[in-house]
Amino acid sequence: MTNELPLNKENILDAAEMVLRRYGPEKTSVVDVAKVLQVSHGTLYRHFASKASLREAVTERWLHRSIADPLEAIVLQSGGSSSERLRKWLEALISSKRTYAADDSEMFAMYAAVTLDAVEMIQLHVHRLILQIARIIDEGIQSGEFKPGQSEVIAKAIFIATSRFHHPAHAKEWVAEKTDEEFAAVWNLILSGIAASK
Amino acid sequence: MTNELPLNKENILDAAEMVLRRYGPEKTSVVDVAKVLQVSHGTLYRHFASKASLREAVTERWLHRSIADPLEAIVLQSGGSSSERLRKWLEALISSKRTYAADDSEMFAMYAAVTLDAVEMIQLHVHRLILQIARIIDEGIQSGEFKPGQSEVIAKAIFIATSRFHHPAHAKEWVAEKTDEEFAAVWNLILSGIAASK
Repeated sequence: MTNELPLNKENILDAAEMVLRRYGPEKTSVVDVAKVLQVSHGTLYRHFASKASLREAVTERWLHRSIADPLEAIVLQSGGSSSERLRKWLEALISSKRTYAADDSEMFAMYAAVTLDAVEMIQLHVHRLILQIARIIDEGIQSGEFKPGQSEVIAKAIFIATSRFHHPAHAKEWVAEKTDEEFAAVWNLILSGIAASK
Repeated sequence: MTNELPLNKENILDAAEMVLRRYGPEKTSVVDVAKVLQVSHGTLYRHFASKASLREAVTERWLHRSIADPLEAIVLQSGGSSSERLRKWLEALISSKRTYAADDSEMFAMYAAVTLDAVEMIQLHVHRLILQIARIIDEGIQSGEFKPGQSEVIAKAIFIATSRFHHPAHAKEWVAEKTDEEFAAVWNLILSGIAASK
């Protein structure tokens, strides 16, 4: 057997993602991925000890690339008010989740399933997002646009208060016509809660 | 065959709830309930045309009795500030859901399943709860404790912003140690959003 690709983590995850998308999380085994990579099962098991850890790693990479990295770009943008940036960030999170639920349903279903099992990995992902919100809040506090407060606690509250629109457990509700109107009501409540009194 | 009980809606729902609790929603049929009531299938089908409508009616009664009615009592209480009443109301909703998820798991599982199917019935239940919050908000606006605003829109935003703590799709997360701390953060954000500036 020949193996033209070096066996690094990225190559393994590329192969695993391809196989998972094709056969679905239930039917994919570490052996299937080893076959695609033309390596022995033993070689692959040294990198990923189980089907579950393979799924988790693929989902983690997907969450970074598809959700967290693009949102980071919004945090780093300059110009505009902090409340505009916060709303833009939340709308980008919500719209990316909705888009993936509809257009990348295999990965989204795997992510929804992994959410229940890989608690620690998901907590790290959520923590990264909360720190992004906290940076926007900090900026707003410094400029006097937002009330003083503990930015990370406020950021966490905002993330939780918008769960209905981005947590995968609610995906079935996102198609409802009233979702945008409901987000607007929650956004107004949040903004009213963080804005400095004029 | 003798049937000592008059065949009214309450008696049918009592029998259906008993059978559903014993055999679970998947295995219970209209025929099983007819047997317990000692009536013919045809007689029972005149009241409930399907297994789904029977489940929906049992869940609806359970939601009224176990969730909405006790919360109504909190709205009607006098004394204390509106923010105290609102927090008490939210904590009662959250604690009743958590208690039922743990101690009345058959009914809770049926309710979680029905939530996905009986959209209209659940919307009416949610609307009833939102109107209860709106009455507390209205009182607070009238007393000057809360900012002026559209009480029903604000109430809906508060209900949605606390989904993480009472929507059955999140039941698995309620056991986490940090849930109370997270609710406190969301509550502070909400209160900050509705309280009149001092």
